[in-house]
Amino acid sequence: MQTYCGIDIGGTQIKIGLFGIDGTLLNKWAIDTNKENNGQFILEEIYTFLKETIDMTVCLGFGFGVPGPVKDDIVLECVNLGWGKTNVKALFQALVGQEKIITVDNDANVAALGEATFGAGDHALNTVMLTLGTGVGGGIILNGAILKGVNGSAGELGHMPMVDDGFLCGCGKHGCLETLTSATGVKNLARMYLEEGRLSSRLSLEEDFSAKYVFDNAKRGDEVGLKVVDDVAYYLAKACAQIAVTVDPESFIFGGGVSAAGDFLFDKVKAYYQTLAFKAVRDVLFKPAELGNDAGIYGAFMAVKNHG
Amino acid sequence: MQTYCGIDIGGTQIKIGLFGIDGTLLNKWAIDTNKENNGQFILEEIYTFLKETIDMTVCLGFGFGVPGPVKDDIVLECVNLGWGKTNVKALFQALVGQEKIITVDNDANVAALGEATFGAGDHALNTVMLTLGTGVGGGIILNGAILKGVNGSAGELGHMPMVDDGFLCGCGKHGCLETLTSATGVKNLARMYLEEGRLSSRLSLEEDFSAKYVFDNAKRGDEVGLKVVDDVAYYLAKACAQIAVTVDPESFIFGGGVSAAGDFLFDKVKAYYQTLAFKAVRDVLFKPAELGNDAGIYGAFMAVKNHG
Repeated sequence: MQTYCGIDIGGTQIKIGLFGIDGTLLNKWAIDTNKENNGQFILEEIYTFLKETIDMTVCLGFGFGVPGPVKDDIVLECVNLGWGKTNVKALFQALVGQEKIITVDNDANVAALGEATFGAGDHALNTVMLTLGTGVGGGIILNGAILKGVNGSAGELGHMPMVDDGFLCGCGKHGCLETLTSATGVKNLARMYLEEGRLSSRLSLEEDFSAKYVFDNAKRGDEVGLKVVDDVAYYLAKACAQIAVTVDPESFIFGGGVSAAGDFLFDKVKAYYQTLAFKAVRDVLFKPAELGNDAGIYGAFMAVKNHG
Repeated sequence: MQTYCGIDIGGTQIKIGLFGIDGTLLNKWAIDTNKENNGQFILEEIYTFLKETIDMTVCLGFGFGVPGPVKDDIVLECVNLGWGKTNVKALFQALVGQEKIITVDNDANVAALGEATFGAGDHALNTVMLTLGTGVGGGIILNGAILKGVNGSAGELGHMPMVDDGFLCGCGKHGCLETLTSATGVKNLARMYLEEGRLSSRLSLEEDFSAKYVFDNAKRGDEVGLKVVDDVAYYLAKACAQIAVTVDPESFIFGGGVSAAGDFLFDKVKAYYQTLAFKAVRDVLFKPAELGNDAGIYGAFMAVKNHG
């Protein structure tokens, strides 16, 4: 039976999925990410694991998702892995041989492809995924393929400028979407309203709190919590309305910890979206992600299969 | 010699270009748009003109640009022509015969394809065009082809929501990019600052004025004029920064009357863009359109040639 591997390299774990060519997940594993010596053992350890675990002779190719920007198959940088500019394709090709197909894509992009195809998108050919985690990741699927962009930065939606003089972003700018709608953003907004002191909140009793705690309190009617959820919904809706007249997708898929708030958040997103979006794109679907941490291996499989 | 026709249907004139298959413009014409009876004679009159003017036997196909949304080759509506839902492809195919290739696209989209390929883009495969006229039109070219979107609304960039409680847009929303950066937008902003009365301006002496007049006064140091140009530049830069992390193009091309202001406007756009855009996309090029009113026929040619 012919197979492909989808490999999602993260900062703490590497997830590996073995797929039949029809997309059936045959088996999956997770191995620890060895970040010693600037991550220089990572690819060899993946190869060693695979050689000992799967039948390499029937594996047609290997799709990689990596936590950094990728341009023309070259990984420009992966801070989380210690990698500088790294030609993952050439390095892994040297291990597995020239006849294997190898693709390398950004992890948010392969997650979007996985969700679009096997998850919430249900074989959607045109969809936009936003992952609301510690940061905000994005991926755009057009005609069934990852949109990469000339700098490998298509779908870097967390860095859409939303607010003037806003919160400082990890990218060095202020007011990016990520500073408002990630878990960090939820805390930024909550702290801002607490400092303003105009709204009452039991959050003021806590020295530190999580985004989930803000949402849980909002659900119980906490004034600051409710204002924060309203703001998050507004900025997500505005970004989606801007993206919708740019690429006009059939659906937006939301993953990550903040999206676990579910309809409590997304009913508000949808309501704002109806007021903010151009008439012709108001029927777009808003869907929660379904594959969780497996989105990356599914998408990495799909990326390499598309090239096979 | 084999040829293609690029046909750009406008509300007052229909522009027709005859092209060699290598893209050489062999001849071009303009005929009046007959809007009688809801524009029902338009396609027949184009056919009659062509039959009497060009050698139809060597013409492989006809590319159309139309002033309205197009979905799956069906024109949904062209208010300017009097058209409701219109299957231009089927109607024109019935006139010219089944063996001819026919494509139908939105006029802003074909103009973008024309500029990307034969104009400012200089064979760019990934570019975004914004036409700053009475409204703001947009077109996105990815991998050398028009991005259409699932509702035919990809590239409707004039309707990106930019400002809360902003000026009323023709689309029914408030605060669209078009209400701030089109000729109408320039006048909206100038009137707002004149009514506020905090800045001095010789515009206050005029009962009505054009966008060009606002820019001309700004160049002479008029306070309201300068504030308006600054605002227009800021909103264009912000929209471009949002679009850049969505599709990551190699260039933005600007056409239309407002863009005739040239470097006086675009030096400010570029300066704002550097502060608003994600680091990885800051090297994008900003270019003035080069083909003027011929962009549509060039792009319509390219669209039908791509399908040939």
